[in-house]
Amino acid sequence: MDIASFIGIISGLSLIISAIFLGGNIYNFINVPGLMIVFGGTLATTLITFQFRDVFAAFNAAYFVFSKDKEDPNDAVATMIRLSRISRSQGLLNLAKFKTKSLFLKKACGLLADGSSEEVIRAALTTEIQSLQMRHFIVQDVFRKMGIYAPAFGMLGTLIGLVQMLSKLQDPANIGPAMATALLTTFYGSLLSTLFFLPIAGKLRSRTVQEIIHLEIIREGAISIINDNNPVIIYEKLSSFISSRRRKPMNQMGKKLKQ
Amino acid sequence: MDIASFIGIISGLSLIISAIFLGGNIYNFINVPGLMIVFGGTLATTLITFQFRDVFAAFNAAYFVFSKDKEDPNDAVATMIRLSRISRSQGLLNLAKFKTKSLFLKKACGLLADGSSEEVIRAALTTEIQSLQMRHFIVQDVFRKMGIYAPAFGMLGTLIGLVQMLSKLQDPANIGPAMATALLTTFYGSLLSTLFFLPIAGKLRSRTVQEIIHLEIIREGAISIINDNNPVIIYEKLSSFISSRRRKPMNQMGKKLKQ
Amino acid sequence: MDIASFIGIISGLSLIISAIFLGGNIYNFINVPGLMIVFGGTLATTLITFQFRDVFAAFNAAYFVFSKDKEDPNDAVATMIRLSRISRSQGLLNLAKFKTKSLFLKKACGLLADGSSEEVIRAALTTEIQSLQMRHFIVQDVFRKMGIYAPAFGMLGTLIGLVQMLSKLQDPANIGPAMATALLTTFYGSLLSTLFFLPIAGKLRSRTVQEIIHLEIIREGAISIINDNNPVIIYEKLSSFISSRRRKPMNQMGKKLKQ
Amino acid sequence: MDIASFIGIISGLSLIISAIFLGGNIYNFINVPGLMIVFGGTLATTLITFQFRDVFAAFNAAYFVFSKDKEDPNDAVATMIRLSRISRSQGLLNLAKFKTKSLFLKKACGLLADGSSEEVIRAALTTEIQSLQMRHFIVQDVFRKMGIYAPAFGMLGTLIGLVQMLSKLQDPANIGPAMATALLTTFYGSLLSTLFFLPIAGKLRSRTVQEIIHLEIIREGAISIINDNNPVIIYEKLSSFISSRRRKPMNQMGKKLKQ
Amino acid sequence: MDIASFIGIISGLSLIISAIFLGGNIYNFINVPGLMIVFGGTLATTLITFQFRDVFAAFNAAYFVFSKDKEDPNDAVATMIRLSRISRSQGLLNLAKFKTKSLFLKKACGLLADGSSEEVIRAALTTEIQSLQMRHFIVQDVFRKMGIYAPAFGMLGTLIGLVQMLSKLQDPANIGPAMATALLTTFYGSLLSTLFFLPIAGKLRSRTVQEIIHLEIIREGAISIINDNNPVIIYEKLSSFISSRRRKPMNQMGKKLKQ
Repeated sequence: MDIASFIGIISGLSLIISAIFLGGNIYNFINVPGLMIVFGGTLATTLITFQFRDVFAAFNAAYFVFSKDKEDPNDAVATMIRLSRISRSQGLLNLAKFKTKSLFLKKACGLLADGSSEEVIRAALTTEIQSLQMRHFIVQDVFRKMGIYAPAFGMLGTLIGLVQMLSKLQDPANIGPAMATALLTTFYGSLLSTLFFLPIAGKLRSRTVQEIIHLEIIREGAISIINDNNPVIIYEKLSSFISSRRRKPMNQMGKKLKQ
Repeated sequence: MDIASFIGIISGLSLIISAIFLGGNIYNFINVPGLMIVFGGTLATTLITFQFRDVFAAFNAAYFVFSKDKEDPNDAVATMIRLSRISRSQGLLNLAKFKTKSLFLKKACGLLADGSSEEVIRAALTTEIQSLQMRHFIVQDVFRKMGIYAPAFGMLGTLIGLVQMLSKLQDPANIGPAMATALLTTFYGSLLSTLFFLPIAGKLRSRTVQEIIHLEIIREGAISIINDNNPVIIYEKLSSFISSRRRKPMNQMGKKLKQ
Repeated sequence: MDIASFIGIISGLSLIISAIFLGGNIYNFINVPGLMIVFGGTLATTLITFQFRDVFAAFNAAYFVFSKDKEDPNDAVATMIRLSRISRSQGLLNLAKFKTKSLFLKKACGLLADGSSEEVIRAALTTEIQSLQMRHFIVQDVFRKMGIYAPAFGMLGTLIGLVQMLSKLQDPANIGPAMATALLTTFYGSLLSTLFFLPIAGKLRSRTVQEIIHLEIIREGAISIINDNNPVIIYEKLSSFISSRRRKPMNQMGKKLKQ
Repeated sequence: MDIASFIGIISGLSLIISAIFLGGNIYNFINVPGLMIVFGGTLATTLITFQFRDVFAAFNAAYFVFSKDKEDPNDAVATMIRLSRISRSQGLLNLAKFKTKSLFLKKACGLLADGSSEEVIRAALTTEIQSLQMRHFIVQDVFRKMGIYAPAFGMLGTLIGLVQMLSKLQDPANIGPAMATALLTTFYGSLLSTLFFLPIAGKLRSRTVQEIIHLEIIREGAISIINDNNPVIIYEKLSSFISSRRRKPMNQMGKKLKQ
Repeated sequence: MDIASFIGIISGLSLIISAIFLGGNIYNFINVPGLMIVFGGTLATTLITFQFRDVFAAFNAAYFVFSKDKEDPNDAVATMIRLSRISRSQGLLNLAKFKTKSLFLKKACGLLADGSSEEVIRAALTTEIQSLQMRHFIVQDVFRKMGIYAPAFGMLGTLIGLVQMLSKLQDPANIGPAMATALLTTFYGSLLSTLFFLPIAGKLRSRTVQEIIHLEIIREGAISIINDNNPVIIYEKLSSFISSRRRKPMNQMGKKLKQ
């Protein structure tokens, strides 16, 4: 569960809602056709822009990001040191038996156990990282585009409202409320974009950056196992990916793994 | 037929049209000179910006994208494994006889059958991919620029309407409807841009990304055939281009091909 | 003569002018001080931003682009194959006598005839392409910046008009026409930017892309002549720069050249 | 203490406050719910966009930048020359005892003392620089995004105020003050963004650039110590990172170090 | 003296001032507190964003660009050919005595005279070019950011004015002049940005591009002197940096130098 996002969404929404209550009637802020134009229009244009499965993947990714815990890059370093030790004591072949839920780590172990050359390992894992990066980019892009389409439909709704109001300008007493209604779609579009779509795109990007680092640690570790296979050098190389303040010393990693 | 785009356009349009009907008279939203300024002006500026044939290519590509089915990258991997098996059993020369509708795959087979070196194959196919990418980029750019020009002409139309209205401000009763008419071109321009031009540019980009992956699988496969020509290694290398969730196991690919 | 641009400018202008005529008096749209602020201001800021000769080069390039015919990349491929045949039958030295109006092709021939190494040829021609690309980029940038400055001066003109109008708000009957006049500079600025400056920058960019491909074909051809000098391989390599739909088969190129 | 930032913030704030006082009553510019929407909303969306610890790191970094003194790149060059002399006179092993507060320099000394190859040193230190650069980028991004969210929440607040005002347009005498209040949130959002968030993001970027140069001098110096270990060549290479006007001659550096 | 900039600033300012005079009283356009908010606020935020010395360097660079004459790249080519001839006739050592005001050329001569390897020369001079490029980028960035801050403070000033005006809406006769005054800061901000800050940033960028070419000619020339030291090849390589229309033939360069 991503607590920061949870706090952010709850507090952001309550601020907006209490501001509406303070100033008067909340019914003035509810307009069903306006909500439909902004919500529906944004969803419709998103379907034109992307593939069906990219849109599903995006909502899926958003759900996972907000429910799944973050991974600690120190764990990836520890895993690679452990793999290095296994391969030194039991041979590279035994890496094929290594149990892990990560398909990427499994592929790396498989390539090592098959005795692939450094060039094949680097090529296969780099392609894998790049295509993951590209898929994640598309997923972020779905929310980024929704963050652009929502205010655009908000403005379209306001334009429709303004044209309707201005076409029948006989009753001046009606101008105020009609304009308030017309402005509502602009409000909906901006709120959706500012409080949901753009921050979610940001969080997805932030998570992707972390996942890529995780995979790069595994790739560089696998290449080191092929080349020199010295746990100390592997630690030296891989720990550089982690901020010096959050980096764990090597002996501490060993202990953790043995448990 | 791209179903997502179809659903998106139909539902987006019906939302807008029903919002117009709900609020009153649809005739208030029809203004022929305004439509001409926005449509015609956008088309005119697009012709100044691009070559004639780029504009044709763009509309062509849009038609194809919405009517043609997507390709499965697993098929490209399967094809390259099949080519690898053919070349192992019958020799590289027989690849020249391989039948395919894809001109790119044909070129790859021709280069392999000619006994070209890895460097020549890589250079020729990479140039081919890059120039395809560049042509596709121009095609997307046509719609992206139309998505910029349409609101600009919408604003020009509104400015013309405002200047005309303000120049003869004698009759205040006329202000409302005149301003409604002036705002219509802004509405047309935003609607065209938000519901059509920008999403189509997005879909074209999304399709290009997929096609490039397809061609990269073929290129990397052809280079692997020259180098080691081992179907297992080829599968290992090429399947990295596909998301692990959508990737088919190698034996399943073989079966599919034999059918 | 670039027909697409011609049609675009004529039809864009007639649409705008007829929209003005339809709605009333064209005199309401003519304001000489406003025109001077937008035209003059844009030109003045362009002179501050660029070197004198860059601005001249930009107008020059715009004139050439709209009057000169496009080059066919197939011709460049054919020329390089012809040079390959000449050098095979008569020796590299004879390339120095090859007659051409293109200074770039002349330099390539000179380098080949001098017996320069591949590295020298690649370095000299790549530098040449890059500095041409940079000069063309500046030329496009002149129009792109004019497309930004023109609406900015339009807004400055409108602000001047508004401040003048609001300072003497005694006569309410005068508000309408005064505001119409103030809005005119915004109209001029947007029109110049949307219908002229931005599309011209786009066309120049589109032409540069084509010219670069032309030069790259010559460079890669020259390097191939140094290396293997096989017309078939040269055709295979260079034709990859051209879209498969517009690519001519090699024998047809030969014929064309013999004529 | 960063004096430029201090002067900037004090003078910027006093200009705004005195402009408010000059024109009348400062109470017209205080609106607690409005302040809460803009401040709270910006903070809430920032929490959704980033990880908790990125937001903490950002405020931390901002505090350090404004309180810590800048480092002189000449000192880094001097340190590397001193390390070169130590390693020449006492051997590479003695570098392990070199005392420094910089964790990066410590790592470089450790790698040198371990007798690591150039390739390992370059890889480890480059990864370290890149991951520092990425973390700093995120920190700047926190303020850059706050600079975008603040005006967006300002606009949302104004929209809420406008809708509330327009819904009850009976009393025309009330329009002015109600609209003034509605505009206040736009004012808060723009002020926060223009005077705080965006300039702080800029200063953090400017500091990062300097720190990266510092680390690059250390990395290039360490590699030179492995390779030729000639203080004169090291000075020649490393001093190129410093502007020729601010660069100190080599003998002056030596003196400074001996003190 | 940069004549284009001089003409641009004078003509741009006179256009704006005459437009103000034509429409009435220039006193309506002078508002001291407004000027202070826009000027002072822009300067204050610039000090927060950059280091003190970057801001000084920026104003310094702007002064130099507008007063210093441009350099002709043909001169750099001629100088390098001359250095090549000196080193051929008198030996590389004599290059140390070459007199020049350019610190970069002096460093290149020093490195050549020291008998440095190609790799050391390329590394040192490339680092030097890159750090110059980065410093120049910061200098341009100062003006680019001022071009963003000025309109932002213009808008803040207008918001202050509007809130003050709307808070005391008793006297409707006062609305016009009060709003005119409020709009003035927007006018100041846009004028400063459009006529000064952005074009100056553009000119600085344009000058940097030329200076970089100058330095690249010197670097490539120095490397050629180390490698083959053939004046004809040096001319062939270096002249590629210059547009073919502005390039001088080699014999003409020789003559010029002997004078």
